[in-house]
Amino acid sequence: MNKEELLKCHQRIVPFVHATPVLTSSLIDKRLGCKVFFKCENFQRTGAYKIRGATNAILKLGDEERKKGVVTHSSGNFAQAVSLAAKSLGVPAHIVMPTSAPKVKKEGVVTYGGIIYECEPTVEARQTMADKISHDTGATFLHPSNDLNVIIGQGTAAMELLNEQPDLDVIFCPVGGGGLIAGSSLTAKYFGKNCKVIGGEPMEADDAYRSLISGKIEGNETVNTIADGLRTTLGDVNFPIIKEHVAKIVCVTEEEIISAMRLVWERMKIIIEPSSAVALAALIRDNQENASDYQNKKVGVIISGGNVDLNQLPF
Amino acid sequence: MNKEELLKCHQRIVPFVHATPVLTSSLIDKRLGCKVFFKCENFQRTGAYKIRGATNAILKLGDEERKKGVVTHSSGNFAQAVSLAAKSLGVPAHIVMPTSAPKVKKEGVVTYGGIIYECEPTVEARQTMADKISHDTGATFLHPSNDLNVIIGQGTAAMELLNEQPDLDVIFCPVGGGGLIAGSSLTAKYFGKNCKVIGGEPMEADDAYRSLISGKIEGNETVNTIADGLRTTLGDVNFPIIKEHVAKIVCVTEEEIISAMRLVWERMKIIIEPSSAVALAALIRDNQENASDYQNKKVGVIISGGNVDLNQLPF
Repeated sequence: MNKEELLKCHQRIVPFVHATPVLTSSLIDKRLGCKVFFKCENFQRTGAYKIRGATNAILKLGDEERKKGVVTHSSGNFAQAVSLAAKSLGVPAHIVMPTSAPKVKKEGVVTYGGIIYECEPTVEARQTMADKISHDTGATFLHPSNDLNVIIGQGTAAMELLNEQPDLDVIFCPVGGGGLIAGSSLTAKYFGKNCKVIGGEPMEADDAYRSLISGKIEGNETVNTIADGLRTTLGDVNFPIIKEHVAKIVCVTEEEIISAMRLVWERMKIIIEPSSAVALAALIRDNQENASDYQNKKVGVIISGGNVDLNQLPF
Repeated sequence: MNKEELLKCHQRIVPFVHATPVLTSSLIDKRLGCKVFFKCENFQRTGAYKIRGATNAILKLGDEERKKGVVTHSSGNFAQAVSLAAKSLGVPAHIVMPTSAPKVKKEGVVTYGGIIYECEPTVEARQTMADKISHDTGATFLHPSNDLNVIIGQGTAAMELLNEQPDLDVIFCPVGGGGLIAGSSLTAKYFGKNCKVIGGEPMEADDAYRSLISGKIEGNETVNTIADGLRTTLGDVNFPIIKEHVAKIVCVTEEEIISAMRLVWERMKIIIEPSSAVALAALIRDNQENASDYQNKKVGVIISGGNVDLNQLPF
């Protein structure tokens, strides 16, 4: 991986994704004693950054592969991202979704032209059905976070943020499956000036925090967190990148997540999902514990998405 | 009133207010068959357009008047707007608030440096106390919507929208006390190219709709609407402007307001208050009733504010 490849990835996907805005809040700056720049992927197509990686992975396929289509399994944002990215490129998209997936997410996939296959809500059932579809149709399997083309696509959000704010001292990312933070850490290395990357993770699903300590990929026994996008674990493609390039991971409570989410909703008037609030909550906590690290510094926060169910709000 | 005065007003307040963004939604455009441009005053300082008129009114005061301060009565956005505008200009702000005003609004006034005077929650008590403060301190009374300097200040939101989109065919505004729509209709006259202005009003507080029919200012017997900013009635300064320059007023149900609010929250990922949703709801209704008027037209919508109580959402 080098700078040139990351730049090419960005050029490749630019026609298919939004250049999302970078927003600030004078109240949050004042409270934290530093300048915070929010990269708002909640305004991205399909409401989350995932379209970046999905688009890059499909664009990297050859003509023959594109004809045969792509297949993924996801109950969340990646399903919609693959559906829309594939539609934009005229590629069939086979989406395996658990029977338990929310109706609104299924409708999203249908709107974007994805073909849904329902399966039992277990990891095994999802992978088995995806493998079968891949075998039967020749479709290429796309993993939501453990695929290098997906990872570097996700990194383009931080790249755009650094284009606008080249002097960032640190970027905070939420950590779920590890694709976003791995991609962001590569971008920060090549496009930042000594820009650190710090991950935010719910205490209730702190697998990445524990993985960095143990040096091997750890799982979660339970994932009782409101941050529904962060219930997954790292993979063997992104973990080595994270180990090498991520400064640390800060874990936060459910209360801290909800409080950060509320702060952004009330003060910035934008809708962010709980997983995005985890990154800000991690900044707030680290700012409290290590205030001197942040005095007059410039901090980036990746707001990963804005897909919330308004019928199930924590307020 | 002429074009030059409106331009001067804008130049006067520009250092003290945000130039808020204009956002679009491809989904809403597709659904309505026209291009819709949302002027996002929910991102304005204090979370609503009211700071524009408050700032203009205070800047128009002489040095002696400024020293004596300003006084207003409001339980809502105007109280915070006057407090912050006065603070920015070093002017004392006396704010009469009913004892029933929400705690969060009182805290906002205190944060922005306003001095609160509590009174009984009746129109008479509020005016009596404001008059007394004005008499005792020499402070100038500022009306939230029935003051020409306030009105033309509010019109600068539509002016900025027309700067960005000079070819708008129509602008939709919510109608409460009448300040925003009166100001917007003046701006549309001088800066638009045959740009109509249409008001949106809750059926549950349709005084402006009835006033335009009867030709005199009508009141509301009840105001059972979620659009808390629109429960007030027109005044003798803004009504003649509205009568002359507003094309029509479209009334909407509470269901339509909540549904429009939900559409913006879910699809545009921004927080708008119910009063703002009334303008979009009016566009959606008029678009259904007169679809051919909107084919391929350019439509502006003033999103007046984003101050909602997250503990009292209608979803």
